[in-house]
Amino acid sequence: MISSTPKTLRYQELADRLAEFIRHGTYPPGERIPSVRQTSKQQGLSISTVLQAYSLLESQGLIEARPQSGYYVHAQIAERLPEPETSSPQHDPSLISLHELVMRLMHDSSNPNLVHLGAALPTIDSLMTQKINRIIANIARQKGEEAHQYQFPPGLESLRVQIARRAVNAGCNLFPSDILITSGGVDAIDLCLHAVCSPGDIVAIESPSYFGTLQILEVHGLRALEIPTHPRDGISLTALEFAIEHNPIRAVMVIPNFNNPLGSLMPDEKKEALVNLLARHDIPLIENDVSGELYFGDKRPTVCKAFDTKGLVMLLSSFSKDISPGLRIGWVAPGRYRAEVEWLKFTLSASSPTLPQMAIAEFLESGGYDQIMRRTRREYARNVRLMSDAVMRYFPEGTRCTRPSGGFVLWVQLPENVDSLELYGLALQGKITLAPGHVFSATYQFSNFIRLNAASFDYATERAIERLGAMVVELAARR
Amino acid sequence: MISSTPKTLRYQELADRLAEFIRHGTYPPGERIPSVRQTSKQQGLSISTVLQAYSLLESQGLIEARPQSGYYVHAQIAERLPEPETSSPQHDPSLISLHELVMRLMHDSSNPNLVHLGAALPTIDSLMTQKINRIIANIARQKGEEAHQYQFPPGLESLRVQIARRAVNAGCNLFPSDILITSGGVDAIDLCLHAVCSPGDIVAIESPSYFGTLQILEVHGLRALEIPTHPRDGISLTALEFAIEHNPIRAVMVIPNFNNPLGSLMPDEKKEALVNLLARHDIPLIENDVSGELYFGDKRPTVCKAFDTKGLVMLLSSFSKDISPGLRIGWVAPGRYRAEVEWLKFTLSASSPTLPQMAIAEFLESGGYDQIMRRTRREYARNVRLMSDAVMRYFPEGTRCTRPSGGFVLWVQLPENVDSLELYGLALQGKITLAPGHVFSATYQFSNFIRLNAASFDYATERAIERLGAMVVELAARR
Repeated sequence: MISSTPKTLRYQELADRLAEFIRHGTYPPGERIPSVRQTSKQQGLSISTVLQAYSLLESQGLIEARPQSGYYVHAQIAERLPEPETSSPQHDPSLISLHELVMRLMHDSSNPNLVHLGAALPTIDSLMTQKINRIIANIARQKGEEAHQYQFPPGLESLRVQIARRAVNAGCNLFPSDILITSGGVDAIDLCLHAVCSPGDIVAIESPSYFGTLQILEVHGLRALEIPTHPRDGISLTALEFAIEHNPIRAVMVIPNFNNPLGSLMPDEKKEALVNLLARHDIPLIENDVSGELYFGDKRPTVCKAFDTKGLVMLLSSFSKDISPGLRIGWVAPGRYRAEVEWLKFTLSASSPTLPQMAIAEFLESGGYDQIMRRTRREYARNVRLMSDAVMRYFPEGTRCTRPSGGFVLWVQLPENVDSLELYGLALQGKITLAPGHVFSATYQFSNFIRLNAASFDYATERAIERLGAMVVELAARR
Repeated sequence: MISSTPKTLRYQELADRLAEFIRHGTYPPGERIPSVRQTSKQQGLSISTVLQAYSLLESQGLIEARPQSGYYVHAQIAERLPEPETSSPQHDPSLISLHELVMRLMHDSSNPNLVHLGAALPTIDSLMTQKINRIIANIARQKGEEAHQYQFPPGLESLRVQIARRAVNAGCNLFPSDILITSGGVDAIDLCLHAVCSPGDIVAIESPSYFGTLQILEVHGLRALEIPTHPRDGISLTALEFAIEHNPIRAVMVIPNFNNPLGSLMPDEKKEALVNLLARHDIPLIENDVSGELYFGDKRPTVCKAFDTKGLVMLLSSFSKDISPGLRIGWVAPGRYRAEVEWLKFTLSASSPTLPQMAIAEFLESGGYDQIMRRTRREYARNVRLMSDAVMRYFPEGTRCTRPSGGFVLWVQLPENVDSLELYGLALQGKITLAPGHVFSATYQFSNFIRLNAASFDYATERAIERLGAMVVELAARR
């Protein structure tokens, strides 16, 4: 019955392909694979060819037949499969590119076996998550149709109403119609850059700058001009003015409230002066306020947008640092560029997901946000203080550390001869992640700096800082 | 107590600002406004200034005090507010730009007072929506923490496993690790273009092409080269080969399965020939398969990716046309460009929302998709046939109409002298939307074509087609 060469070839081919599927986890151990009939139909092969392939796989121990039920991936296969990728690199970290480094930071951040001081992930209060989940379950039950329709730009009105209301706390009079919903803060930055810049343009940014900012400028083909920035009060206006007078700067992009990684906070007068400076030169300001709600003091800081009279400030923020990173909802108030940004949002992503918009709108409307955030802010202030204390305790002399008044990251300057990329490699071997200073500048200026995530602080964190300190001592003594 | 000029000014300023907030809907009718104490704190004004402002607003009839409860926006205010934007334009539609036209199509699509033949919105089976909502409610209750964490690229593994399994039906052997989750199909296109093109590059596309494709090329600063395309079997390979030999084409972007607006379906041999042609010239193919599941025949059509041996095909699709437009989940299998696309995804949006990924993964895993889709496909096949019949019945001689074998749009060629932009204007006045042919080409070639959405068809649709037909007759007779 089974004899011709092409047919034999075909069943072996099929078996090989299925084996590969099993090895790659498309069919995990214990799972049922498609029936002989299904596979025959899908692949356009005869029943007998498929049966042959299955019996070959069975004899190889990859699948097993269960009577009346079909074929299943052998459960023991798991032990023979390679382990999931671990992210501890064995090769010299100084050889990897900036892209690879950033991607490794990203992948590491979901590895449960590491102490996470690398990625700047927030710690969301569990009450926040519970409340919003209750709202999501209700929406799924009661407004299930609406949740699955497009919410074309500018996005859900009830959410824009809530954002406009909260903007008052930041000194800002926004109307719901001024606001466009985005898929997180990064999406908002992408839209703003598309709206005001063309490839080759120069954008002035803070130095150091969040590596996400640098990479998005790279994708847009823009040139970053890094402006000196003070760890307490932000970007130097003198330096910025000088830069504007000597370069065709197309836009300025800053995080005035709790810059990442500096934690700097621009005083109100300085914000006003920045807005006025740019207004005189007709330069748009992309204002990233994603950490604005994470203040340690008793008043939410003002945004530059509050001083904007010419519509040049494009204020953007997101709910990723306070309500939910996973819902991916942000917003932008693009001032005079509103129509352009709305068109771009539609063209580049049609719309942002509807259910997350409904959930956040209902949560903000239902109250409770401010109460939970008061606790979160106290937590962050405490953890930043504790981590700063630990750094001082365990790191060698010559170390400097920021004293942020909001957010949850620390920017640490190590003794001059310590290379933070080397430290990064050592730390990873010791199951600790950190963000090496190199990624916070396009010109590799911060080779003896690291950024630490202080969103949480417990015994394991303290011990990790102690071990890191010992590594720094060792590296500092080496030369 | 209240006497000094600056103070008087301040309370009037505050009242004006709050009045504007009320008029713009930041505080809708019947809603409570912030208490005197809150406003005093937020604005840094004295209690007495705020009280004065509130009493001014009260005397203007904008707010009312309720004992023991606070101040509320007067309920009757609603009648005095302007009506929500209506989208029927009064001015000459030929004067508006392509951008404005596309944005109007988008805004019209959510206007409940119109018969929607314009935007290509799917009709999702209500059982599909019910099932997925039950899953969402369960996730919110049982996996609430996970749903709010980042799912960094490549995205949720269990979803990628499901996508890899379903790809077999399209003749394609994908592993979960080949796939990256995106925020809908448009996001996937954006990523592919970023990965393989630079501003100024030429991209060959079908003619006509979905206007979203044309606009995204515009945002990227790319030049579209429109290749003749047959309404039955897709892009002309002869023309494409000629174009490749005479132009530095950087990428080709096609919808082989049920092109929008043509509904064309490339036969397997032609798909294979296309892949081989591009392989010979080392040109990447961006293959958009968003409508691949909407076939009317008894077999899901193959994708070009099935014939890809060099990793040059970037296959993308989404769940917006079959499961949920609002969840905004799509995916891409970028072949040899995988690492670059993963980096771009992280850089341009950090990640796609987690909860929608979990919901779709669990839904696909739980079964039921295929059963519901069988019904949906029958529905679409029926509605496309009914609308085509109606067009034939009511439109004048000289009209031509596609006969798609999948999807839910019809592409209608009107008598030569009929301008579809003029028809669009007339139709809108008659509360009917349609997509004028102009938007399906960068070179304004299809001025006597329209695209009709046939996702649903009922008595109102039939009457709308009848009225449209009468308009076309009138326009055709005019010159």
